[in-house]
Amino acid sequence: MLSPVQIIKAKRHHKELSENDIQSFINGYLNGDVTDYQMSAFLMAVHFNGMSDNETFYLTEAFINSGKTIDLSEFQKFKVDKHSIGGVGDKTSLIIAPLIATFDLIVPMIAGRGLGHTGGTLDKLESIPGYSARIPVEEFISNIKKSGVSLIGQTDEIVPADRKIYAIRDVTGTVDSIPLFVSSIVSKKIAEGADGLVYDVKIGKGSNLPDDDEAFKLAKKLVEVTKKFGKKSIAVLTDMNEPLGNKIGNWNEVEECIAVMKGQPVQDLIKVTSVLCGAMLFMSGIASSIDEGEKISNDKMSDEKTYKKFEEMISNQHGEIDYLNNYNKTLRSKIKYEITADEDGYLSELNAYNIGYASIELGAGRKKSNDVIDFLSGIDLHKKCGDKVKKGDIICSLYAESQEKIDRANFQMKGAVKISKSKPSERILIKDIIY
Amino acid sequence: MLSPVQIIKAKRHHKELSENDIQSFINGYLNGDVTDYQMSAFLMAVHFNGMSDNETFYLTEAFINSGKTIDLSEFQKFKVDKHSIGGVGDKTSLIIAPLIATFDLIVPMIAGRGLGHTGGTLDKLESIPGYSARIPVEEFISNIKKSGVSLIGQTDEIVPADRKIYAIRDVTGTVDSIPLFVSSIVSKKIAEGADGLVYDVKIGKGSNLPDDDEAFKLAKKLVEVTKKFGKKSIAVLTDMNEPLGNKIGNWNEVEECIAVMKGQPVQDLIKVTSVLCGAMLFMSGIASSIDEGEKISNDKMSDEKTYKKFEEMISNQHGEIDYLNNYNKTLRSKIKYEITADEDGYLSELNAYNIGYASIELGAGRKKSNDVIDFLSGIDLHKKCGDKVKKGDIICSLYAESQEKIDRANFQMKGAVKISKSKPSERILIKDIIY
Repeated sequence: MLSPVQIIKAKRHHKELSENDIQSFINGYLNGDVTDYQMSAFLMAVHFNGMSDNETFYLTEAFINSGKTIDLSEFQKFKVDKHSIGGVGDKTSLIIAPLIATFDLIVPMIAGRGLGHTGGTLDKLESIPGYSARIPVEEFISNIKKSGVSLIGQTDEIVPADRKIYAIRDVTGTVDSIPLFVSSIVSKKIAEGADGLVYDVKIGKGSNLPDDDEAFKLAKKLVEVTKKFGKKSIAVLTDMNEPLGNKIGNWNEVEECIAVMKGQPVQDLIKVTSVLCGAMLFMSGIASSIDEGEKISNDKMSDEKTYKKFEEMISNQHGEIDYLNNYNKTLRSKIKYEITADEDGYLSELNAYNIGYASIELGAGRKKSNDVIDFLSGIDLHKKCGDKVKKGDIICSLYAESQEKIDRANFQMKGAVKISKSKPSERILIKDIIY
Repeated sequence: MLSPVQIIKAKRHHKELSENDIQSFINGYLNGDVTDYQMSAFLMAVHFNGMSDNETFYLTEAFINSGKTIDLSEFQKFKVDKHSIGGVGDKTSLIIAPLIATFDLIVPMIAGRGLGHTGGTLDKLESIPGYSARIPVEEFISNIKKSGVSLIGQTDEIVPADRKIYAIRDVTGTVDSIPLFVSSIVSKKIAEGADGLVYDVKIGKGSNLPDDDEAFKLAKKLVEVTKKFGKKSIAVLTDMNEPLGNKIGNWNEVEECIAVMKGQPVQDLIKVTSVLCGAMLFMSGIASSIDEGEKISNDKMSDEKTYKKFEEMISNQHGEIDYLNNYNKTLRSKIKYEITADEDGYLSELNAYNIGYASIELGAGRKKSNDVIDFLSGIDLHKKCGDKVKKGDIICSLYAESQEKIDRANFQMKGAVKISKSKPSERILIKDIIY
């Protein structure tokens, strides 16, 4: 058996590691035989030399084996989930979870918090007073039994190796590595007990993987490794040059989802959500193609049943249902700052990366892990790319609790908004579908 | 100023680090702001992306600044030292130090212990009863004042950052990286107060850098970085496919050096030693060329003054001078095993790498850092490459204190000795000289 340093050297020298090597390295890390500095050296070597499909599969398997898995075998129905690699204004889960649950399918969703410049589904849900994402696994299962859906945060018992390693990746510059992304994402999804997984891989300036080729590669690997576990899998590559929808923050994003479920036509958000749902319905056997699934989902988007399921999902986790009625009252932090067009033309860029960081400065995300989120802060977009604008038109409104936060956000917004004389080419929202 | 993770990421993304970045990262490591796992991630990134000449210089400088430097400014004479990257049977320092000191030059030598399959000058000297390499810096300086030469091990006060980082490199597979080698070697040499440095960079199967191109690159970088510190520098690339001289171990190597100083013609050892001394005499201004320096050194090799200076050097550090008279008594560990030729022909290979590891198995080196060395164990070569051999001729003798050690060493020797029908081409000892 190889020692920890031999395993690191093998990886460094492009030698393929065995299932045994990888399992013993991960086990060793959890029991203290492999030190933090050996793990970080290994991760950096993986960053440079990558991992074969087999190695990535074994790493994912080792992550899963490091903790408990959720047993959903008592449910005979197809269990399907969607995971996004993270985007700005990326709120589709809030609609997808209830919509898919209305089809008599199981949606066991483990969601995350904001990361880097991108928001997190859990943070958004917690903008609803009372909502609790930290429920025990038993309650997660009883919610599923009752409503077909539950949405929780990662627990300490599931894939602990991933959590311990992620903490190191974050401070050693080894976050953006395809095999590390894949093993981290897929292990959690397999452990949550899903039969089918749809991945939303963001492409463009606001993606966590700003390089398009890398995003395509990630999508391909996510699907491959998930299938190796005997699960169905589809990846949808979606545009993230511009934020998704018109709201970026927490409560304002919940608000926008409710509005859509009540019939408001937010085109890009509805399109991406419908395609992701379509892929889920296709793999569940409810639709005969992703296209057909998309059409069905689009029809169901503003169906009363979908919104009812949403309320049920929130209520099961102790969220105040009455509060949801505020969705059309524009509850916002007290200071407002408007960015206006400085010339006539067409809006040609709303850089999602800058807008993501600006919303964090406003208080909608964390700069340090213990920062407290201001749920009513954020950004409302009044124009989207391709829209005609006149000098002085309001492009977006920034909301925060202090002028200092507004100023810092405004600094992040520098160069994020661009206006062109000619109409920019139409935005292609769905770049590719891999399965 | 960049944070530790930003510095790691910059290195990972091929961005050049500033003097400030590198100094703050190393300082941070010593004061605890940079963790072990951040350091190991950084080292692995350096392994993959290398370092520019400026970065290597700054890293070396940061190492030097991490501790004390030896102040030899009271001596008006030229201070010159030689450093080898490590070889098998590589005992030249024992002759070079006294020989150069007879020229009214200062030789302030900080030597090392065995590393991997290669031996260490300190271990060899400690085979002389009473000899102490662990003397305080004050005694090192007083020895120099008295005899012009002293040879000690690294102390805790000099380049502590290098020692702390070396410990991590050893267990994270980041030892063989050119910029890390260069900064580690040059920092110690600059800190010891030398004005001129000659590097012996070994090439071939028994080198610590088995790839020839890498060895050439290391030689070039050692010279460049040393010159950036305003010091004179020459690198000599010497053959290490076959061990140097006829003895591999500790006391037997001291014995061989004494024999050479008493006039015994060990050709390869004398040639390499003369060229290294020649480079030192050239940079000291005593010879007008390396060639001339080589001739002068060759003449001085068996001069009575050289051996007297050797005795003085040993005596200054409490070594028993009477013991040196044992040099022709073949004091060896009690069990002897002879490897003989299994056919007629010419000896065509004596693989230095295997022989180095075999000598460690015999007890001449350490497998773990706290192993105790058996100073009388080792290997005596009776034939060298190119020699005509008949079936049954003794090629070499192995010495150890137990049959088990002999067996393990013999296992390492498998394939190390090769005999060919035709005479192999002449060994070229000096591959190149870079300055």
